[in-house]
Amino acid sequence: MERHFDEELKSLKSRLLEMAQIGQEMIGLSIRCLAERNAALSEEVFKLEERVNHMEVEIENEILRLLALRQPAAGDLRLLTAILKINNDLERVADQAVNIVERALDLLKQPLLKPLIDIPEMARLAQRMIQNSLDAFIRQDAELANHVCRDDDEVDRLNDRIFDELLGFMTKDPKTVARAVDLILVSRNLERIADHATNICEDVIFIVEGKNIKHHFLDEPQKEAS
Amino acid sequence: MERHFDEELKSLKSRLLEMAQIGQEMIGLSIRCLAERNAALSEEVFKLEERVNHMEVEIENEILRLLALRQPAAGDLRLLTAILKINNDLERVADQAVNIVERALDLLKQPLLKPLIDIPEMARLAQRMIQNSLDAFIRQDAELANHVCRDDDEVDRLNDRIFDELLGFMTKDPKTVARAVDLILVSRNLERIADHATNICEDVIFIVEGKNIKHHFLDEPQKEAS
Repeated sequence: MERHFDEELKSLKSRLLEMAQIGQEMIGLSIRCLAERNAALSEEVFKLEERVNHMEVEIENEILRLLALRQPAAGDLRLLTAILKINNDLERVADQAVNIVERALDLLKQPLLKPLIDIPEMARLAQRMIQNSLDAFIRQDAELANHVCRDDDEVDRLNDRIFDELLGFMTKDPKTVARAVDLILVSRNLERIADHATNICEDVIFIVEGKNIKHHFLDEPQKEAS
Repeated sequence: MERHFDEELKSLKSRLLEMAQIGQEMIGLSIRCLAERNAALSEEVFKLEERVNHMEVEIENEILRLLALRQPAAGDLRLLTAILKINNDLERVADQAVNIVERALDLLKQPLLKPLIDIPEMARLAQRMIQNSLDAFIRQDAELANHVCRDDDEVDRLNDRIFDELLGFMTKDPKTVARAVDLILVSRNLERIADHATNICEDVIFIVEGKNIKHHFLDEPQKEAS
């Protein structure tokens, strides 16, 4: 029985990993759709979203089944509830990729505002954060999880820079407004993907170190997490 | 023991309700900070956020304790995992209110762009959705939950209208760009709050009707949920 449960956990973990990989693929496709001005890529993103939605429901049902059947204690319980939350985060990552591709389809109707450099860079960083957050979860690696949290600062920095640059475009030339706002929203979508990776890593650190760092600043004199 | 567990569930539900009420208060304060140009209200929002963060950690720990100690089956298990997810959604609602107040503080440094009408309307709707989603959860009322999902369409409609109006401002007068973008982002924050209420209601319907409507469009020929 115990043995069986280990196998079931392992299967759940590998399904999460697969879902994370689809999420990364969706981010990549949605940014290529935007940067290469290739509308056809959006179809793939929509198809993959349906798959992720199916997977989320299946994984959640399996977690409920295991909670009821195996009645796991302490460590395994914490692992299952973490999988429940990570499952939810990954489904929202896929939602964000769909939002990006919808903005991209809108942007393709208009001439290119500027060659994209920071947004693809931010997307690569977001993909890496998703990959690392899942690796940190599978390997129970708190150090890697902390590394992902630090990557999030870089994403925020890029997000601010993109925002300022696009504000400059809009202020100088009103014809750029609609396109610049779309790009600002794409940048927000990527920021939210990075936030989901950070959420996952907070769960990993919680499990590994047995403490909740999510709101660690509550206990500290300086509010470094604000 | 069974009796005791009922009391524990009841206590968890009332703590969620309290958290939802704080969330609504934070939405109200953040929009008043913006609409009444009253920076002092932001302090209250930041204070309430710390309280919500504490509550989230406490509720999650209590859920883990109950899962391990009571080893609940079927219905109770589904209830506890729903509480775990709702807890998470409510904490994110509070985050959105903080984002709004940060934008508001930014906007207060500049002259008023226009009197705000649609944004406070959208905020009232978002508050009502949060309240109704929690009521639906406590009373296990699928009809009320469905009503919340319909309110979300109205929020999306308002969000689109605000976006179009502000795009018009920016295109006509570049001096309005920074303020208009800030208002667009506030409107997105409210839209996300409404999404969290919708998530909660999907959980309620899942529990009450024993099925997962989250991705119901997967099974239907028309994609009405796209």
